[in-house]
Amino acid sequence: MKILSFESSSASASVALTEGEALIAQSFQNCGLTHSRTLLPMAEALLANCGVPMAAVDGFAVAAGPGSFTGIRIGVATVKGLAFGLERPCAGVSTLAAMARGLEGLGGSICCVMDARAGQVYNARFTLEGDTGVLLRLCPDRAIALDALAEEIGGSPQILVGDGARLCYTKLSECCPGLRLAPPHLLYPTGYGVARAALPLFESGKTVSAQELDANYLRAPQAERERRKKLEGDSK
Amino acid sequence: MKILSFESSSASASVALTEGEALIAQSFQNCGLTHSRTLLPMAEALLANCGVPMAAVDGFAVAAGPGSFTGIRIGVATVKGLAFGLERPCAGVSTLAAMARGLEGLGGSICCVMDARAGQVYNARFTLEGDTGVLLRLCPDRAIALDALAEEIGGSPQILVGDGARLCYTKLSECCPGLRLAPPHLLYPTGYGVARAALPLFESGKTVSAQELDANYLRAPQAERERRKKLEGDSK
Repeated sequence: MKILSFESSSASASVALTEGEALIAQSFQNCGLTHSRTLLPMAEALLANCGVPMAAVDGFAVAAGPGSFTGIRIGVATVKGLAFGLERPCAGVSTLAAMARGLEGLGGSICCVMDARAGQVYNARFTLEGDTGVLLRLCPDRAIALDALAEEIGGSPQILVGDGARLCYTKLSECCPGLRLAPPHLLYPTGYGVARAALPLFESGKTVSAQELDANYLRAPQAERERRKKLEGDSK
Repeated sequence: MKILSFESSSASASVALTEGEALIAQSFQNCGLTHSRTLLPMAEALLANCGVPMAAVDGFAVAAGPGSFTGIRIGVATVKGLAFGLERPCAGVSTLAAMARGLEGLGGSICCVMDARAGQVYNARFTLEGDTGVLLRLCPDRAIALDALAEEIGGSPQILVGDGARLCYTKLSECCPGLRLAPPHLLYPTGYGVARAALPLFESGKTVSAQELDANYLRAPQAERERRKKLEGDSK
């Protein structure tokens, strides 16, 4: 069963073609260009260079959030369009769980962090068993203040991964001496991580249709937050 | 300094664009197609999707062997052509060292193995320090019989990587219980590993020209071996 997986929830973009746990092909880029321009051409070039037509893809997976609102929308909309056209099942997975999955083989405590602005990060913490590859979630996906995260981590050893990793490392490594950055080629989320997080859903038939696939922003978008604030102000 | 790195020394193919240690973009595929068809289109699609013209690449790196004779020739010839046309410096690195570099972050004893047929593997062993990323070479690149490798490894823990990893795991894990496979997305060599192995050469000015860049087959090609055998037979 060939799965095409998309990751565009932060600054980087990645697409992977997998079959079970095996990686057939992957493209990744972190060059600052907008995903609306790069994501679909990346997928098309990847498939073309493998000689695999889009119609041979059996299912689509996507990092459905949290992360950049625009990035998530682009990823989810791309997968919705492809899956709707080809009538294929979809799986939306946590961006943070996908990130942890991308570190398979490293083992240890993994702290996934995405820059959520305003002194916050989107975060989840996991334990990844080096030998068995079992991923244990230690908390739900959340938006958390850097200070609160620092207090929680304390001096424990943690591998930081995600587009908030450098921010955390810079701001927190003095009070959290156990922090270290994931290596440069594994520092950002990948299509392969998404595929690995989605595999159990495909294997157990817990996929959704293109119509059912939804983004998980975790926080209301800024426009909604401002509207709510305004409405609350008006009602006073 | 932007480096474009090529890896095509075994079944998989990969291209990476890096700047220092940072990975800007990478493509990888392991779909069984010949590298003469896939490698250059892969590089072109990667650069185009990043908006980086080939002329903006400051240097080229390649996994120069050991490995598949045809694969190495395709990689080295591609880099020779690009570097000659653009007058850029080149670096050829050990395929096996590049493979070990691709496991940065895992740490531990790394056993790089490529299927060399006839009961042999191309092999080198390394120790990678998890925290510092320092790579220590434990032996030169070599062609070695599986039995001899098994005797050397014994029960010590080793992470297997390369297109000979599954072969070794299947054949040797009974007598070498410490063997484990690198995770699926890190099991094959990548452009990033080549880039990391080549970085010290670029930083210290130890690059070569397109004309000087050469393949390192380690073993004479089969045609040469057969010719030599025939000539030896004739002279008896």
